[in-house]
Amino acid sequence: MADLDASEVAMSVWLLPPFRPRYERLSIVSEHLSVTQANFLPDPLPEKLYEGKAKVLYPTGDPDVLLSFFKDDATAFNALKRGSIARKGEINCTLSTHLFQLLESRGVATHWIDSPAADWMRVKTVEIIPLEVVVRNIAAGSLCKQTGVALGTVIDPPLVEFFYKDDDLGDPLLTPDRLRLLKVASDEDVEILRSMALTINGILREFFASCDLTLVDFKLEFGRERSGSIVLADEISPDTCRLWDSRETDPERRVMDKDRFRQDLGNVADAYEGVLQRVLAVLEG
Amino acid sequence: MADLDASEVAMSVWLLPPFRPRYERLSIVSEHLSVTQANFLPDPLPEKLYEGKAKVLYPTGDPDVLLSFFKDDATAFNALKRGSIARKGEINCTLSTHLFQLLESRGVATHWIDSPAADWMRVKTVEIIPLEVVVRNIAAGSLCKQTGVALGTVIDPPLVEFFYKDDDLGDPLLTPDRLRLLKVASDEDVEILRSMALTINGILREFFASCDLTLVDFKLEFGRERSGSIVLADEISPDTCRLWDSRETDPERRVMDKDRFRQDLGNVADAYEGVLQRVLAVLEG
Repeated sequence: MADLDASEVAMSVWLLPPFRPRYERLSIVSEHLSVTQANFLPDPLPEKLYEGKAKVLYPTGDPDVLLSFFKDDATAFNALKRGSIARKGEINCTLSTHLFQLLESRGVATHWIDSPAADWMRVKTVEIIPLEVVVRNIAAGSLCKQTGVALGTVIDPPLVEFFYKDDDLGDPLLTPDRLRLLKVASDEDVEILRSMALTINGILREFFASCDLTLVDFKLEFGRERSGSIVLADEISPDTCRLWDSRETDPERRVMDKDRFRQDLGNVADAYEGVLQRVLAVLEG
Repeated sequence: MADLDASEVAMSVWLLPPFRPRYERLSIVSEHLSVTQANFLPDPLPEKLYEGKAKVLYPTGDPDVLLSFFKDDATAFNALKRGSIARKGEINCTLSTHLFQLLESRGVATHWIDSPAADWMRVKTVEIIPLEVVVRNIAAGSLCKQTGVALGTVIDPPLVEFFYKDDDLGDPLLTPDRLRLLKVASDEDVEILRSMALTINGILREFFASCDLTLVDFKLEFGRERSGSIVLADEISPDTCRLWDSRETDPERRVMDKDRFRQDLGNVADAYEGVLQRVLAVLEG
């Protein structure tokens, strides 16, 4: 397989899930990349389009396609806490790849096209809807902090919440009325997002359960294609999902997601690696 | 009038709006009151039932009736900022008395019974529903801070928002789903609160407009009587309403409410006094 070119790899990724990264990890040496290992990247690499906290987006020759590089950088509390998690970029990109494929196979439209390397994803160009759509199966995180509901309270039916994606404002919670006031999405779009989020929750919850992982809550971002269609964007990973080891009851040991970084629980990289291994074991099982 | 006893005064207050305080202001000398001036107060004054940031509640001989004393103490930002505003207790009690009477005359049930002194109100015993119900006609305050909506944006139709009355949690905004999750009020009660809040907004907005005051937004609290009926409680004053001088366009000079205290705009007591004088002028006009 080592002598396949990038487009063939991309094809094989399409045809042969579960996806396995075929390239060595690329290293960022500056704003741009030093790339000779893989020919899926434009050479020279164009200026980045956008750099977020966890990913960098690059244009490609096709205006409808972007390249997304997953970084090891970790941030929390609206970037007040910064660090790095070993292999996070690869793990999150690989997990997201598998989970996007799973969702696509179940009829959920995503921005994923293919993943030509462990930490690179080709995605459809979309206009990101500035909302963080959070689904909660179990109370944790900001819900507990803000409302006093006890950590671990089962939420049935699951809660779908909308936060305004705006770092300067600290990603505030939006009521349906505030959603309407800000005009970030129409009532109809909000209903589509809610319905997609619940569908995704059903699929992911079942899948993670088969990996002995409890899907506590997660954050989704959606984008609009040029056609107007709404698709799932961003990523699905331990950065964006709270995942508890369902074989473990200890409230610290069970945590297998970014809360280990947020709360300084240690073994952060091991937890991310553990999630990947469990997911791969089930997919290959 | 000076030789009327308290019950006669109370009667006359009922019968002869607009209310005018009949007693000299009482001074708090300790946790208890040094009271010889007025015989509407139990002697000795019993232990207070509850002391909030702006009022003290005392029991009376009748379990269905409480006495509420309005303090001059001013707090803001969840009591991080503390101070005192001259004559605030009297002004807020007197304004609330008039506004509760106005609302009662328009069919809105309130906890108000009578006001035997300028800073004392007799109220029905109710169980306070732990929600701050906020009505917004114009964007200001936390709405702007949280969502980035520009100060002064007209909100039409008005927004009714619910905040969880919990100082430890910082009175967080509640979505309808979180309201349901916390079980602070049933869906039916929430609809009653929303409807009462909008009715109250219509009445107050029109009344304040006749005083050349723009009702920007305001916070209401409601209570449940022993019978289960929901009534308007707390107070209606420049502590709980944002009021802008409608003859004034300057964004600082127009402010006639607690924002003068919050934002250190000066002339705080004058603003409160100004609101009272305008309201009295209209009522007596």
